Amino acid sequence: MATEEQHVESSVITVSANGVWKSGVESTVNVRGFDSMVMDEPPALGGTDHGPNPMEYVAGSFVGCFTVMLQLIGGELGIEVSKLEIAAEGDIDLRGLYGTADVSPHFQEFRSTVSFAAGGNVENLAQLKSEATKRCPVYNMLKDAGCEPQIDWQVDQSA
Amino acid sequence: MATEEQHVESSVITVSANGVWKSGVESTVNVRGFDSMVMDEPPALGGTDHGPNPMEYVAGSFVGCFTVMLQLIGGELGIEVSKLEIAAEGDIDLRGLYGTADVSPHFQEFRSTVSFAAGGNVENLAQLKSEATKRCPVYNMLKDAGCEPQIDWQVDQSA
Repeated sequence: MATEEQHVESSVITVSANGVWKSGVESTVNVRGFDSMVMDEPPALGGTDHGPNPMEYVAGSFVGCFTVMLQLIGGELGIEVSKLEIAAEGDIDLRGLYGTADVSPHFQEFRSTVSFAAGGNVENLAQLKSEATKRCPVYNMLKDAGCEPQIDWQVDQSA
Repeated sequence: MATEEQHVESSVITVSANGVWKSGVESTVNVRGFDSMVMDEPPALGGTDHGPNPMEYVAGSFVGCFTVMLQLIGGELGIEVSKLEIAAEGDIDLRGLYGTADVSPHFQEFRSTVSFAAGGNVENLAQLKSEATKRCPVYNMLKDAGCEPQIDWQVDQSA
């Protein structure tokens, strides 16, 4: 394992990341040649807050992934997706992380507000929404993990 | 929703992220006041490769999260965890993302190599491993999503 590059073989790709512990609960994480990501925890969770915590990165991944899918599928369906902004948040019961109760340590619930202006073939809007939730990797990872994102769609078709 | 700050109420915290589409499939994602994350896709996936793609961020989140847990639980068990380095990789079948086959769009398999030097109460090493996999948020999110990380432990106890 541990190749630094993303490689495509038939339809399967492998993505990777590597990290080094720095101090406390802080680490420096690298993906290919990009700038390092700093991951830490706030003081309330035993860290020094030098960077987002790992589950904040997961929430961010959802935002980035859903953005990709709306543009990709919008292109397929002839819908121009502009002014796209996504907010996402998830609830974590810390008793799972600390081992003090038998609860899931990851997201209990996950919510997102997806707002954009739609132009072009707006009659395909329902299909855009259904395809995005069906095909988005991070959406489906969360769904399969039992915390399907609840999407609040805010679409402006007046543009 | 959409508070920018992480807040603690009893044992439940809410983490959040917000993003704005830039162009193509690229977005800028923010968590609290930290530097923006750039998310994009490589050209083979329709992007301009200005940043890691969202599933690479998820792989990175696993690395950062498992680091937190090994240090947290190591502290509980009196094990000094040093020289900690984690590599992680996951396989994605792009047919899910593109909607050309009825396969999961997220990770098919996920593997990680976890290497560190252990000092102190090394007799607790088996417990460290089992507690980390039981309590790590990202590990369990992947496990619950059907792609439980396969861990290759490389522990140096000679230090």
